[in-house]
Amino acid sequence: MSNRKAVILLSGGLDSSTVLAMAQSEGFECYCLSFNYGQKHLMEIEFAKDIAVKRNVAAHKIVHLDIANFGGSALTDDAIEVPIDEADNTIPVTYVPARNTVFLSYALGYAEVLEAHNIFIGVNAVDYSGYPDCRPEFIEAFETMANLATRIGVEGEPVTIQTPLIHLSKAEIIIAGLSLGIDYSLTVSCYKLDKKGFACGHCESCRIRKSGFFEAGIDDPTRYN
Amino acid sequence: MSNRKAVILLSGGLDSSTVLAMAQSEGFECYCLSFNYGQKHLMEIEFAKDIAVKRNVAAHKIVHLDIANFGGSALTDDAIEVPIDEADNTIPVTYVPARNTVFLSYALGYAEVLEAHNIFIGVNAVDYSGYPDCRPEFIEAFETMANLATRIGVEGEPVTIQTPLIHLSKAEIIIAGLSLGIDYSLTVSCYKLDKKGFACGHCESCRIRKSGFFEAGIDDPTRYN
Repeated sequence: MSNRKAVILLSGGLDSSTVLAMAQSEGFECYCLSFNYGQKHLMEIEFAKDIAVKRNVAAHKIVHLDIANFGGSALTDDAIEVPIDEADNTIPVTYVPARNTVFLSYALGYAEVLEAHNIFIGVNAVDYSGYPDCRPEFIEAFETMANLATRIGVEGEPVTIQTPLIHLSKAEIIIAGLSLGIDYSLTVSCYKLDKKGFACGHCESCRIRKSGFFEAGIDDPTRYN
Repeated sequence: MSNRKAVILLSGGLDSSTVLAMAQSEGFECYCLSFNYGQKHLMEIEFAKDIAVKRNVAAHKIVHLDIANFGGSALTDDAIEVPIDEADNTIPVTYVPARNTVFLSYALGYAEVLEAHNIFIGVNAVDYSGYPDCRPEFIEAFETMANLATRIGVEGEPVTIQTPLIHLSKAEIIIAGLSLGIDYSLTVSCYKLDKKGFACGHCESCRIRKSGFFEAGIDDPTRYN
């Protein structure tokens, strides 16, 4: 490997914080990216900042995205309510249009400037809430595209999109993160986080997180309101 | 075709203006996207606005991108000079990291909200300046990825990335655009455009444009300083 730099997509949530710890445990020098995309749960960026400082990362950039100006998601559009306690098998209204595609594209640009050949993202195909851009086939297609799109992909060693959580259950992710020293009280998952950083306990993201701790047999340290 | 909406990446340049005219001539209802990415030639956005108004498009959104904050390109980074009259076969310093990937990702998000299945981009593999993200193999890989990434790709008719200029020479593009009523004095190509919208006449982009008019046997209406 030509260098040990990696770009890490860090939301401040349970999954991406675990991914950061995993990348560090593999010896990567971590350059973190967080996005302010007009999400209603904007407090999560504050959590991302704290985690980046506590984990002593090489750099942490916060990028402002105009994606909310397109509308279309309950996470960014005030006209659409975040649903409570409703789950079925269709793509949910909390899906943000092309979100992971946009996030990974920025990560690719940052990787190109850094000459980093590894991009880490905490997508998960098990508890993935039905988002199409969390599936392995999407990640593989993005990686193929990335290697045709960029100077680093065309001229050098291939770019790899690293998805260490993709086949883990939420409980397995929690157990892995605890073994790497993650303090999950510093992470958030809630789509309806209040201004003090307390979780609602009822949205889909809270429910998946709660059942992860339950299945792992670990006390849930999340601050619920 | 389920609807005639299309997203058009419109920079205010010669190529994308021609693409807009082509999409309109095919009967598409055009939703244009321009990007403010900290480019030194920011005046081009004013040209894009004028063209969008004159061509009576359905909507025109201007998206602010944080991409310049990564550095790495002569088009956005003050520490790197835009070269004058130098061309070779390597990827030039004017390449913006992952630019078309980021642009197309936004276009994909916008298309998803609109339920538009067509995205038009004026990439060109003939006079393409050596940018890896202007090649047909990149576009094909992006399209494959887009159809795995999105609700519209997964649930409905496939998303198509339309590249009507990809195999045309600059001269052929100019001739096509003129036949569709494009006034090229309203478009800009220069990387070093001055504040009044006058082109330098010497940067790589100006040189490609000039030789296009020359080869087409058409008087160049560009305003040079």
